[in-house]
Amino acid sequence: MITRLSHLFLRTLRDDPADAEVASHKLLVRAGYVRRIAPGVYSWLPLGLRVLREVERVVREEMDAMGAQEILLPALLPREPYETSNRWTEYGAGLFRLKDRKGNDYMLGPTHEELFALTVKGEYNSYKDFPVTLYQVQTKYRDEERPRAGILRGREFVMKDSYSFDLTDEGLTASYQAHRDTYERILARLGVKYVIVSATSGAMGGSASEEFLAESAIGEDTYVRCLESGYAANVEAVKTLAPEAIPFDGLPDAKVYDTPGTETIDTLVEWANGADLGKTVTAADTLKNIMVKTRVPGGEWELLAIGIPGDREVDEKRLEASLEPAEYVLITETDFKNNPFLVKGYIGPKALQENGIRYLVDPRVVDGTSWITGADEEGKHVVGLVAGRDFTPDGTIEAAEVRDGDPSPDGAGPLVAARGIEVGHVFQLGRKYTDVFSVDVLGENGKPVRPTMGSYGIGVSRLVAVIAEQMHDEKGLRWPAEVSPANVHLVIANKDDAAREGAEGLAAELDGAGLSVILDDRKASPGVKFKDSELLGIPLVVVVGRGWADGKVELRDRFTGESREVDAGGALAEILAAVRG
Amino acid sequence: MITRLSHLFLRTLRDDPADAEVASHKLLVRAGYVRRIAPGVYSWLPLGLRVLREVERVVREEMDAMGAQEILLPALLPREPYETSNRWTEYGAGLFRLKDRKGNDYMLGPTHEELFALTVKGEYNSYKDFPVTLYQVQTKYRDEERPRAGILRGREFVMKDSYSFDLTDEGLTASYQAHRDTYERILARLGVKYVIVSATSGAMGGSASEEFLAESAIGEDTYVRCLESGYAANVEAVKTLAPEAIPFDGLPDAKVYDTPGTETIDTLVEWANGADLGKTVTAADTLKNIMVKTRVPGGEWELLAIGIPGDREVDEKRLEASLEPAEYVLITETDFKNNPFLVKGYIGPKALQENGIRYLVDPRVVDGTSWITGADEEGKHVVGLVAGRDFTPDGTIEAAEVRDGDPSPDGAGPLVAARGIEVGHVFQLGRKYTDVFSVDVLGENGKPVRPTMGSYGIGVSRLVAVIAEQMHDEKGLRWPAEVSPANVHLVIANKDDAAREGAEGLAAELDGAGLSVILDDRKASPGVKFKDSELLGIPLVVVVGRGWADGKVELRDRFTGESREVDAGGALAEILAAVRG
Repeated sequence: MITRLSHLFLRTLRDDPADAEVASHKLLVRAGYVRRIAPGVYSWLPLGLRVLREVERVVREEMDAMGAQEILLPALLPREPYETSNRWTEYGAGLFRLKDRKGNDYMLGPTHEELFALTVKGEYNSYKDFPVTLYQVQTKYRDEERPRAGILRGREFVMKDSYSFDLTDEGLTASYQAHRDTYERILARLGVKYVIVSATSGAMGGSASEEFLAESAIGEDTYVRCLESGYAANVEAVKTLAPEAIPFDGLPDAKVYDTPGTETIDTLVEWANGADLGKTVTAADTLKNIMVKTRVPGGEWELLAIGIPGDREVDEKRLEASLEPAEYVLITETDFKNNPFLVKGYIGPKALQENGIRYLVDPRVVDGTSWITGADEEGKHVVGLVAGRDFTPDGTIEAAEVRDGDPSPDGAGPLVAARGIEVGHVFQLGRKYTDVFSVDVLGENGKPVRPTMGSYGIGVSRLVAVIAEQMHDEKGLRWPAEVSPANVHLVIANKDDAAREGAEGLAAELDGAGLSVILDDRKASPGVKFKDSELLGIPLVVVVGRGWADGKVELRDRFTGESREVDAGGALAEILAAVRG
Repeated sequence: MITRLSHLFLRTLRDDPADAEVASHKLLVRAGYVRRIAPGVYSWLPLGLRVLREVERVVREEMDAMGAQEILLPALLPREPYETSNRWTEYGAGLFRLKDRKGNDYMLGPTHEELFALTVKGEYNSYKDFPVTLYQVQTKYRDEERPRAGILRGREFVMKDSYSFDLTDEGLTASYQAHRDTYERILARLGVKYVIVSATSGAMGGSASEEFLAESAIGEDTYVRCLESGYAANVEAVKTLAPEAIPFDGLPDAKVYDTPGTETIDTLVEWANGADLGKTVTAADTLKNIMVKTRVPGGEWELLAIGIPGDREVDEKRLEASLEPAEYVLITETDFKNNPFLVKGYIGPKALQENGIRYLVDPRVVDGTSWITGADEEGKHVVGLVAGRDFTPDGTIEAAEVRDGDPSPDGAGPLVAARGIEVGHVFQLGRKYTDVFSVDVLGENGKPVRPTMGSYGIGVSRLVAVIAEQMHDEKGLRWPAEVSPANVHLVIANKDDAAREGAEGLAAELDGAGLSVILDDRKASPGVKFKDSELLGIPLVVVVGRGWADGKVELRDRFTGESREVDAGGALAEILAAVRG
């Protein structure tokens, strides 16, 4: 196929779009791959669509190779199944909801666990039919609060989602592993640098779960890894390595002090080090109690106290992930007024427990640890309050921030933090959705068996942005051959008729050999054409330029920047060799 | 590719679905091609998805061949552009509207004229860039009042829509013709029997417009054609062949008669033939005046009287098309009460004209025609009321039904009515949308030029149903090779290991030769397998059965029903010949 730039629906832009912050967004717009229609809603122009389709092709090939079967569910979904699973409510504001002309509720599907479970229930009824894995490549919708970076986090986007159905837990483990392997193959073919991290399962429910994060400084996901052991996890999924419990023997009694004006940890530590408590006190010796209100969707708001060492902040995402599916808000002045036992700046375990407030603490607050914390009276703190002796929390919660240098949960060494973009997610869902819809099939022994599900997603349109983000250089995009919108970008940089005809002939030969060629046959200066070739990012640029008179053609490698001249007569063979690697 | 029925996500059904009336719907569900999710919303199971993709492929190949360029716009569209074109309102209840979390209005795109006009405006700015034709294969949404016949008329469906942009009217004519030719090629490749009919342009606006109707007795569109001249038109688009005007000379004066109890045409004709008016009266000699109220979207309701010969009914679709974009309703008792000059059953031109009511008549009501019609008093009619002499309508309207045997508008002979399913539509839109968005580009002479648009649609998912509808027989589906979900359906109908191994070997050979094979390797009886092969509708069925012991394989042509035995050794060559035909 020959695509002529004189004809292609494409205008490259010299300037970055005003709303773009990250390189992939700037370049995909400047190179005419995508255009913004509304916040988080984009159109795909010809070259962008080609890359999208190539990514889809790679994903399909690998899904087919693992034995998954492609189907296609609608994006417009009736409320009922999601009502049954409670996700109609749980999704909150992130779900696009609408009504049809008869007033019936519909939604635009963000993910399809419910429908796939029902689809399998509709078709299959015997153990002989299992295992089965179904997938779709489909347009999905999420009403993101902050759509971001063009197609990187859109509100309408293309995803490959798949669902495995097994009769045994071992089967699910195998299906999960097969997907994990397939995702590794897909990302390898696309040339994406990634890391697999342990993840929380969020609104999806279920147990084991990992994320595939593309390494990127502009990523929204923070993950940590331990270089010694290879452990890697999404920050939300990090389980704090709790210290051993300490025997109570010999621990001094708790004592209440007047600590006027110590509402903050800083002022408290300053007081403590001036109070001659017999040791140097740091913020890590204090226990701060944060008050929130939580509710499960549709339920009542309830007070919850969270105790964490004073040297750490609450990580909102970790807190959110720990509470999910319940949501939370910080308490207000009104709440303080209604609950006078909560003394702002001086909240302590005593009042919480006396008033029946649920109290969860950081895993570092093990039995025998001794704390400086609020004494539930204005201007008073208690020193030496020992967990397990003087107070007993209702449990632990992963809400404190994870820091560079924190010990890895496996104890192998320190954690190092980095940022990534979620491109894939694999879940062992278990029977959550087959329970909801009573999906039962006849077992080998004649008794009903309930299949167990896995759910797996890979962000197809997001991968286009991720590849652009990881591969680009300061001059423009650079596409791996597997997803490039063309094999060769052939630039006519010589106005002579002979050169033009030579280039046309070469393009025809390449086309005949099955390559797709972008032919820059425009009446523009060589400089403009070279700049565009760099911006568009086809991996191999061929220039028919001044050298043509001497029988020479130039080959430029867009990735290495290397350029070499070859004989025009041998150009076809050289190009084929370069493209086919 | 080999698809094993022992593994394929497929269950064929013995019974027709309860909600299905037409054959394609019944069979596509029974054969496991599609499943209903909600009214007019379907999922595509593996074989259905394959056919859908094949239709898409054919459409893409032909669109690319005509030089159109593929892009992809979102389905989730902001309100603003459609507000500007007034279609946000004009679409009425047929549009799915929704709000995002910030309360902004969005819609699910039913067609994309606005966005394509804006897209071209965004990229192109010079006459040198034109003409250009862009297309997309995209999921569209219409909140149909009566979704019907499975995927034939869905609320979520796949369409190819394209838009041409030319600088001259001649250019638009050429682009229109190119699309028309392309659609003919597409439908020919798909084996669809169709007719091209003149059409009204409806809510789209614009001038010339034709529909591609697939011939089908279950079609919702009635069209007429003249076998003598080849004229064909959607019923909405038929222009009545008006008779010549008649000189007034010698026409008797109009006279009012007492006609008690003649509110209906039947009773009026009966009275007239008993009244000795000097000739035999038929319903065609009477003029009935129907009262409606109309309004343009957002406007006020206004009374409108429509006069048509008493032997014809109003065709609601023709009336609707004639009034568009205005809508209409029949008047109510309250309207009669508020307008006492309207005497129910006896409305005549006199009162209408005296009271300034807009009065449109059937084109047959030419000057000099004489009518029996209402005299605007209870129980009174006027006889011999002559158009152009005794009353002067405000114009004509195409609202009366078109009948088998009516004269063709070109005067060549009678019209014959038939039914069809709209599968394609081509429009010369003109500058409606480029005017709305002030799309101007620099002309050759330095002055701005406004491009003129064409809009073209072909129903991709609907074509799957249409092909099923036109091709099926009483046993099941029958797919043309071009869109069949597989090339060969290979049935193992012999339990011997040797036969099974032979069939597996043959399947592998066919796969190696590049054919896609559905291999029925299930543990089921030959009868069940044959029935399923008929239901699924792959055009070539190959049976490895009892003949295998004698070195024979059976080839069945699903279209002709013919079957023949070939030597197993030569089966590969025979099958390749049959498939590549």
